[in-house]
Formats: sequence, structure tokens, C-alpha cells
Amino acid sequence: MTAPATTAKAIARSPLAPASFPNMPVIAGVRVGTGQAGIRYRGRSDTLVVELAKGTSAAGVFTLSKTASAPVLWCKALVPGTARGLVANAGNSNAFTGAAGVEAVHRTVRAAAAALGCKDDELFIASTGVIGQPLPVDKLEAIIPLVVESLSETAWDAAADAIRTTDTFLKGATATASIGKATVSINGIAKGSGMIAPDLGTMFAFVFTDARIPAPVLQRLVKASASRSFNAITVDSDTSTSDTVLLFATGKGARHPVINSAADPKLAEFREALDAVMLDLAQQIVRDGEGATKFVTVNVSGARNAEAARKIGLSIANSPLVKTAVAGEDPNWGRIVAAVGKSGEEADRDRLTIAIGPYPVAEHGGVRADYVEAPVAAYMKNREIEFHVDVGVGRGKFTVYTCDLTNEYIRINAAYRS
Amino acid sequence: MTAPATTAKAIARSPLAPASFPNMPVIAGVRVGTGQAGIRYRGRSDTLVVELAKGTSAAGVFTLSKTASAPVLWCKALVPGTARGLVANAGNSNAFTGAAGVEAVHRTVRAAAAALGCKDDELFIASTGVIGQPLPVDKLEAIIPLVVESLSETAWDAAADAIRTTDTFLKGATATASIGKATVSINGIAKGSGMIAPDLGTMFAFVFTDARIPAPVLQRLVKASASRSFNAITVDSDTSTSDTVLLFATGKGARHPVINSAADPKLAEFREALDAVMLDLAQQIVRDGEGATKFVTVNVSGARNAEAARKIGLSIANSPLVKTAVAGEDPNWGRIVAAVGKSGEEADRDRLTIAIGPYPVAEHGGVRADYVEAPVAAYMKNREIEFHVDVGVGRGKFTVYTCDLTNEYIRINAAYRS
Repeated sequence: MTAPATTAKAIARSPLAPASFPNMPVIAGVRVGTGQAGIRYRGRSDTLVVELAKGTSAAGVFTLSKTASAPVLWCKALVPGTARGLVANAGNSNAFTGAAGVEAVHRTVRAAAAALGCKDDELFIASTGVIGQPLPVDKLEAIIPLVVESLSETAWDAAADAIRTTDTFLKGATATASIGKATVSINGIAKGSGMIAPDLGTMFAFVFTDARIPAPVLQRLVKASASRSFNAITVDSDTSTSDTVLLFATGKGARHPVINSAADPKLAEFREALDAVMLDLAQQIVRDGEGATKFVTVNVSGARNAEAARKIGLSIANSPLVKTAVAGEDPNWGRIVAAVGKSGEEADRDRLTIAIGPYPVAEHGGVRADYVEAPVAAYMKNREIEFHVDVGVGRGKFTVYTCDLTNEYIRINAAYRS
Repeated sequence: MTAPATTAKAIARSPLAPASFPNMPVIAGVRVGTGQAGIRYRGRSDTLVVELAKGTSAAGVFTLSKTASAPVLWCKALVPGTARGLVANAGNSNAFTGAAGVEAVHRTVRAAAAALGCKDDELFIASTGVIGQPLPVDKLEAIIPLVVESLSETAWDAAADAIRTTDTFLKGATATASIGKATVSINGIAKGSGMIAPDLGTMFAFVFTDARIPAPVLQRLVKASASRSFNAITVDSDTSTSDTVLLFATGKGARHPVINSAADPKLAEFREALDAVMLDLAQQIVRDGEGATKFVTVNVSGARNAEAARKIGLSIANSPLVKTAVAGEDPNWGRIVAAVGKSGEEADRDRLTIAIGPYPVAEHGGVRADYVEAPVAAYMKNREIEFHVDVGVGRGKFTVYTCDLTNEYIRINAAYRS
């Protein structure tokens, strides 16, 4: 079966979307271009090509899936390293496509390397879309040279548009930071709407800076930052075969002191800016969660360590019962207790405290004596909900971000593919 | 807040329910009685008392939740051991109720021990319902002596009815087995509808036999049997604070050879009958999964070992994307691939094979060359769906049972509690 090409459907913009796409500066050494390969969609862009200046450092983190796609396996082998380009397509993930999938990656790489004038192993590939169907690589080979002719320093919104599948809004974030006396910039774009959208899976984040940072240092930075952003979000607990976060540093911005270590104090402000961009993009993916009507922040403290706090947070954030209670605007803290319990992490039932927004709800193993539900129920009507859970056994903290689980999620995902 | 008492709502019987409650025989040494304590519901039974003959062996397995309820902690300390009675109530789980919850268990135990004429530590307690609200134990104390006056050897359907919360049908199963030349009987009742129903949590299974089996042997039997039944089902991945499986052996049936080991070959038929009863009850819980319209069997083979196969099976069965695809009658095997990948267990992408019902779909890392979707899509319209997944790395097997994820699940769970 080949999926029929589908036209872009009018899906309502998520009620949790930011007001607008940010104003993104030029990143010296980065040019972007987009085109319509017609892989699955008609009448919209589905191909992104990024040209990176010579000397660009590359780093990345990828899905932990044991059935990772051919493009993911290709990129994994290249980081940390150098990069001259990135090709991303939407509509077909080239995942679970066997030997033909590997060949499709090689052909895409060769086409882009020829067009950009670089070596094969300086090219990064990312594909998102239907799993298990052959990628029509001839369409990519045909469009790539055309896209390269239209490269631009400013078309960041078009770039974000070209990697969308079921996203209802374009995702971008930008920040600047000082390294020594120089100011450098960071731009990021992302896609994702549900950990896997209806067949059209995956989250991507591509982040670019004009700072000069060696690849091994960049790899440490992206890994640390992802652990607090892309690894702290969940829409439906499903991990895709193609999740890809790439960070490129061109070194073509203002000159700054040499950086040899991720722990260099001169990087403090840059690290903070990178974290802000990555967290903003990650939260935008949650805000575009399929069918989402509420954005939920789950703050866990008092755990054995940060990893235990993360597991407890994800257990709460992934609980269908917690998520449907949020959809129903029900301050159902009993379900939070149950989710803490099922995480398998140490918690002291008799020291567990829970607050919903500013309202303390439970402590000392039971509901507070002075608990009054009306104001908490009113708080649950907000678009942004915050839970605070202290499990009372240690000092580990972590914050997880998620959305509610609604009828619309079911409607989107139970729809037949074609 | 105290939850207002609610009247029993007319919820449509699950389309996956068995035709009728089974005809259950008398189990020598077991009498059951029920009553209306009015803990939460009006106009329906909410309290079950079981009297067990002197010399009854008791065994059980319980939730692994770190926030297990006071009744669970009480029972855990008693198995393997002897039993003279069981009190179960529906409407309030006495979970996360602090010191008051422990006191409520003690008071219930004392009331029942007095009425049945036994010791406190021969009494088992199980509570299901709202989390975090004080159990009105005075109502239980008042009703228990009255229920004890009405004990009957035959009221198994009434017993199954008294432990229901949001269940849409009564759950029972029965079997007989030979031990040596004697025929013994096994009766089981259960409740559960969603791993946690809307606040009204939990699964219970209470199984009774007239065989004479020492408690330590009984404990091994229930543990082994639960691993293939109650630990092989999932509705929504949520574990309750109160999940309880109890197995009682009165030894008051036909005389049979002495049993000293769970591995005794004379127990072979009994083990099989126990497995059948436990699996039947477990599957009935899935069949009553909130909003379920399809019963799904996930057969995993070729894993590193049985535990790995179980994890892969649960990863598939808990995937919201797989479950919504089943609801949408979409043979979306790409989502099965993704779920195998995210399980974290070893799988060989290039040897993974998937069949949907009798139809081979994918093999050698891709869709089969001769795959035709129409008959598979037609198969997905059945009430009972079977997936076969071989991950190609070993000989570990496991079968997991689940249901689809529908709008009705969201509707039920997003409804405000009161």
C-alpha cells in the first residue's frame, strides 16, 4: 500500500499556542531553504535544506528507541563532528524500511552533498512521517538542487513550516548571550505534536548558533540541556523512532575567547540561553499536543535524587487518569497519589505533600484538615495548571511538562490513516 | 469535602461482557453475605462479608504501589497464613488516609472478628473507591453483624455485585479439578473496570477452593498464576493503591492426598484450573475496561526472556497510539513497531515480524512485499483482535491482554467526581 498524497487539512490552531512566531535574527554561517517535494502532502512545503559554513561543529541527541530509523542511525554516527548541511523532510519517516531505507539515506546525502559542495559525512538527515513505507527518494533528489538555489539567511518561519506534520503552529525560539565581550545568537526551530502524531511521528529540534564551540563541548551542552527540556516533556508517553535534536555552531559570529570545556565559566550565559531556547521549543511541542486544552507543569521535589524525581514526574504526567482529570477541570489529587505510588520510586506516604497551584491540598498522609475544594476547582479552569508534589524522602527535584488528555486526542489518533 | 452519596448510575453493559454470570457451585467451608452500608452509593450493596471455615489457608498478591492503602498493608502482613473471614467494601478505598485509615482497618477487623468469632489476625480486609477520604467505619461496624446473620453458601452473584464500583457486569469464574481421586472446586469473583475507575479505583479478585493446601504452597500457586493473568492485563497502565488478589483454601472438600509442594505433580490439574479461573477473571476486567469496544490479545515471542516479552507486550498494550488505532479499526502496524522500540528491550529491527490476526504484515525490517491491506482492515472490525509480534532475538514469550482507547474512556474519566 502506498499512502495517497493528502492535502494540508485545516486544523484549528492549539489554544495553548504562543501569540506569534518570534522575530529570528540572522545566524552568520546559516542559510535555509524549503521546497515542495510532494512526498505526501500537496500544496505545502515538505523539504528543508540548511547550509552550514565550513568549520561548523555539530552535536545531537536522538531517540532511545530500539527501532530507530535509518536517518537517526546515520546522524548518530556523525556526532560530535563537523557539519556542512542538513536535509529534513516531512510526510515519510523512512523508519522500518529495511535496506531500502538505508539506501534512501545514502542517496539523499549524495544529492545534498553534490548541491552544497561538501562531503557525504558532513550532511545530516532527518525524516518524519509515515512509518514503514518506502521513501520516494527520487522526489528528494529532484527538489534538493532547486532548494539550494533559493537559500536565504532569513526564512526561519518557512523552515519551521517545512518540517511540520500535524503541528497546528510554527515553533521557533531565539536568544542571545555574551561569551566574554562578544554577543552570540541562538536560533531554534522544532516540530512535534504528540510524541507521535497520527502515523506522522516524531519531534525534531534544530538549533543553530554563530558561537565557536568545539563539537565535543557542544555535545555535552546539548545533552545537558535536552535532559531538562526535551527529556522532560510528555504528551502521550509514546517515543518515536525518529526523535532528533541537533545543535550546530558555525563559529562565524563575533569573535570570543576560545572555549575548551562545557564547564567553562565563560559559557555560563550561553548555557542559560541555550537552555531557554531548548525549553521554549520543548514546551511549544507540549502546547501543540494533540487535542490539548491545558498546559500542565509537574514540579516534583523531595525525591531520592533528580532521576527519581523525573520518574515520579513522568508517572504523574503520563497517567491517563491524571490527564483526563485535568481535562475535566477536577482537582483530583487522589490520582496524583496513585501515580506517585506506581512510579516505583521511593516515596514516604506519610510525608507526601501535594499542592495544586497555590493551594496546599494534602500532607502527612492525608488531605489537609482545612482543605476547601471550591477555590482549587476554580483554579483548575485555568489554561496553565501547576502541580507541586514533595515525596518527603530526599532532595531530588525535577520538573516535567505535559498537557491534558481529551476526546480530541482520540478523534485525531483513531482516524484511519488514508 | 465529603463526597456526596451517589445513586447507582445506569451504565450500559460492556459490549465485550460474557453472556452471563457462571453457575457457581457451593465451596465447602465458604459462606458469603452482603449488605448496604451506604458508604457512598444508595440503593445498592456495598459490603461483602465472607466466612471461612477453621483451618482455611490464605495467600495473596497485592499492588506494588509505594502508596498502598491501609487495607493492603494489613493483608500483606497476613499471607501466607490462616483465614476465617474477609470483609470488602466498595465506595471508599481507605487509601491515603493516614493514621485514621489504619484505625479504620482495626475497627473493621474487630467488628468482623466479634461477629464471626475469630481472632483479629484471621480477618482480611479490602476496600475500593475514593482515595483520600475518611472511611465512615461506623457504618461498616453497624452493618457487619447484620450481614453475618444472612450468610449463604450460594449467593455468589450477590457477592460479586457488592464489590462493584463502576463495573458494568458481575465478574465470576469457576472450575473443578482432580487432586488424586478427589474432585475439588474453585470459585472466583472479581471487580475492576479500568486499572483505576474514576476515583473508584482498583481491581479485586477473591478466589476460594475447598482443596486442602498449606498456606506456603498456596502462596506460590497464587503468585505464579497471577503473573500470567492479573499481571498480564492492562487497561490504562494505571496501578491502583488497592489492587488485591486473595486465594483461600478451606480444605473442607473431598479428601485428597496431602500436598506439600507447589511443584507436586498431583497439583498439575489444579494449577491448570486455577490458572483458568484467574485468567478468566483477569480478562473479564479488561472486557469491562472503561469505554472498551475491542478486546486485544498481544502475543510476543522471540524476546530475550519471558520478562522482556512481557515488557514489550505491555509497551504495545499501553501505547495510546496503538489503542486508538484499534478503536479506529486501523491495522496500523507502524505504531506497533514504535511501541516495540520504546519498550527498551532488545529487538532486532531487521528480524522483527508482525502479524495481525491470521495476516502476516511485516518481516525482515519492512512491510511484506505481498501485503494487501483490505483483508487486514476488515479483520480489525472484529470485537476480538490478536497481534503476533516476534522480535527475533531469543525464545522468551508472553501474552498480554488489553482493550482499545475510546472517547468514552475520556468521557468517564474527565467527569467531575461529585
